[in-house]
Amino acid sequence: MSTLRVPDAVPPPAQDCEKLQKAFQGWGTDEKAIIWVLGHRNASQRRIIRDTYQHLYNESLIDRLQSELSGDFRNAVVLWTYDPPERDARLAKEALKARKKGINHLQVIVEIACASSPHHLMSVRQAYCSLFESSLEEDITANVSLPLKKLLVGLVSSYRYDKEMVDLNVAKLEAAKLHEAIKKKQLDHDDVVWILSTRNVFQLQATFEFYKQNYGNSIDQDIKSFGIGDLASLLRVIIWCIDSPEKHFAEVIRASIVGLGTDEDSLTRAIVTRAEIDMMKIRGEYFNTNKTSLDNAVSGDTSGDYKDFLMTLLGARI
Amino acid sequence: MSTLRVPDAVPPPAQDCEKLQKAFQGWGTDEKAIIWVLGHRNASQRRIIRDTYQHLYNESLIDRLQSELSGDFRNAVVLWTYDPPERDARLAKEALKARKKGINHLQVIVEIACASSPHHLMSVRQAYCSLFESSLEEDITANVSLPLKKLLVGLVSSYRYDKEMVDLNVAKLEAAKLHEAIKKKQLDHDDVVWILSTRNVFQLQATFEFYKQNYGNSIDQDIKSFGIGDLASLLRVIIWCIDSPEKHFAEVIRASIVGLGTDEDSLTRAIVTRAEIDMMKIRGEYFNTNKTSLDNAVSGDTSGDYKDFLMTLLGARI
Repeated sequence: MSTLRVPDAVPPPAQDCEKLQKAFQGWGTDEKAIIWVLGHRNASQRRIIRDTYQHLYNESLIDRLQSELSGDFRNAVVLWTYDPPERDARLAKEALKARKKGINHLQVIVEIACASSPHHLMSVRQAYCSLFESSLEEDITANVSLPLKKLLVGLVSSYRYDKEMVDLNVAKLEAAKLHEAIKKKQLDHDDVVWILSTRNVFQLQATFEFYKQNYGNSIDQDIKSFGIGDLASLLRVIIWCIDSPEKHFAEVIRASIVGLGTDEDSLTRAIVTRAEIDMMKIRGEYFNTNKTSLDNAVSGDTSGDYKDFLMTLLGARI
Repeated sequence: MSTLRVPDAVPPPAQDCEKLQKAFQGWGTDEKAIIWVLGHRNASQRRIIRDTYQHLYNESLIDRLQSELSGDFRNAVVLWTYDPPERDARLAKEALKARKKGINHLQVIVEIACASSPHHLMSVRQAYCSLFESSLEEDITANVSLPLKKLLVGLVSSYRYDKEMVDLNVAKLEAAKLHEAIKKKQLDHDDVVWILSTRNVFQLQATFEFYKQNYGNSIDQDIKSFGIGDLASLLRVIIWCIDSPEKHFAEVIRASIVGLGTDEDSLTRAIVTRAEIDMMKIRGEYFNTNKTSLDNAVSGDTSGDYKDFLMTLLGARI
C-alpha cells in the first residue's frame, strides 16, 4: 500500500553515497540526483545510506542536505532522510513549540499516537528522550493546556495490543460510555481518555461501528453536533486517525492545498510520513471524496524540485 | 550493588545446561546443582542458558523446572529463570487476577512502573502484550477500580527521561501542587497523576526534598496524616519506590517475615527482582531500620532448598 518505488536492483549503499556526494560538489547542487537516489529507497535502505555516508565522508548526510538545499524542498528531503522515529520526535517537538492559534499543529501528535504502530510510538518516545532531555508527555503537560493535554498525554502514553482481538460486549459497553459522555458534553471524561488510549485499534473500530448502528449517527458526527471548540476538533481527528487514517490524511492534504496558498508543512508531513505506509489508500480516499486525483492536486499546487520530490514519493515516474 | 555472585570464570552455557540436565535425571532431582548453576548467573547468562537448553534438549528449561521442582523453591527458581521483562509481565498479570482484599498485590505494578528503568517498563509492556493478548493498561482498567486505576494506568504508561535533569523551579511549583492536593485530600487529582507519571526520577526526588524543606513533613508523612484508605497507602508505595526503592523493598521483606508465618510470594518477589539491581542497598537499609541483618532474618524464616536459593541470591556462600 506504499507508493514508494524502489528499483528491483538497488545499487550498493556506497554507490548511492558516491552519487549523493557528487551531487553536492561543485557550483550548485544536483537536486535531480538527490531525488533519484533518496526518493527511491525505503526506510531501512536510507538508514544504511546515512550510516555509510557518515563512514565514507566523515560528515552527517542530514547536515549536508541541510546546507546544500533550501526551502520546502530541503524540509521534505531532510524529513524523509531521518530515521522515522527521530523524524516524528522532531515533528512532535516542533508542534509543541508552535504558538499558533488553533489545534492544527497538535494533529501531528495525534497521528503519531493513533495512526502509527504501537511499536513505532514507543520508538518515537525513546527518540524524543534522547534528543530533547525530557519526555514527550512531560513536554505536552508543559505546553498544552487542559482539556487537550489530558487527552494527548493519555494517547502518547498508550501501548496498544497490536493484533486483531475484538470483544463485542466491550464494544457495546464502551460505545454506550462514549455516547453518554458526548451527550453530556464531557468530552474529556476519564472513560473517554481510557477507552481511546488503552484499547486496540480493531476493538475501537468495532466500538465506533456499534456506536453508529445503535445511536444512528457516527461518533464523529455526534461530536461535531454536541461538542464545540478545540477539544471536539481534536477528538474528531483522534477518531479518524484510529478508524481510517487514510481519510484523515486525505483531508490533511486537501486542506493544505485548498484555496489560495499552500500549507507546505502539512503537505510535506502527510506525504513523507505516509508514503511508505498507506499512501495508496490515501490516494483512493482522496479521489472518492474530492472527485479529482491526489497526484494532479499536488502537482498543480507545487513546483520545482519540491514538486518533483513529492511526486516521486507518490510513485510518479519523473 | 548486586548481591549476586557470578564466578570469575563462567563455564560455557552448554556445560551449565548439561549440569542442569543431569540434575533433572534419575530418581529425585539434584536441587543443589540447580542452585549452584542458576543461582550464580546474571540475567543475560541465564538467557543464553535458556536458549542453549532449548536447542540441546528440545524442551523448555522453564517447563522442566516447573515439573521437577515444587513449592516456594519452584516459584523462586522459575521466576529467576524467566527473562526479567517476561517475569514482571507475569507478576503483573498475577497481581491483576488476585481478588484478595487490600492493595498489597498491586504493589508489584507500582514497583515495575516506579522502581525500574523506563526501558525495562517498556519491555514489560511489550512482553505483556505478547503473552496475554491485551495491554497491561487495558487489564488495569478492567480489574482495578477508581481511584487506584487512574493512578496505576498513568504510572505504567510512563516513559520517563532517564538521566539526571532537575529544574528547581519546577520542583518548587510541583511540590506546591502536591501539597495543595494532599491538603484537600484530592490524592487522585490529575496534577498528582501527571507529576508522578511524567517527571524523571531525579526531578521527583528534588520535588519531594523541596516538599519536606518547605512544608515541614515529608510528603509520605503528610499523605499518612491526611489520607485514608487504599489510595493513600498506594500513593505512599509510589513515593517510596520513586524516592528510595531500597526502603520500599526492605519494608516488603520485613513485612513478609514479621509475625507468625511468612508471605513467601512477597519475599521471593523482592529478592528475585532486586538481587541484580540494588540488594546491597536494601540490605543496608534493612539493617539500619531493623537493627538486625536481612540475611539472618531471611535465613531464620525459611528452610530447605528455598532458603538455600534465596541465600545464594543474597550472596551467601552455601
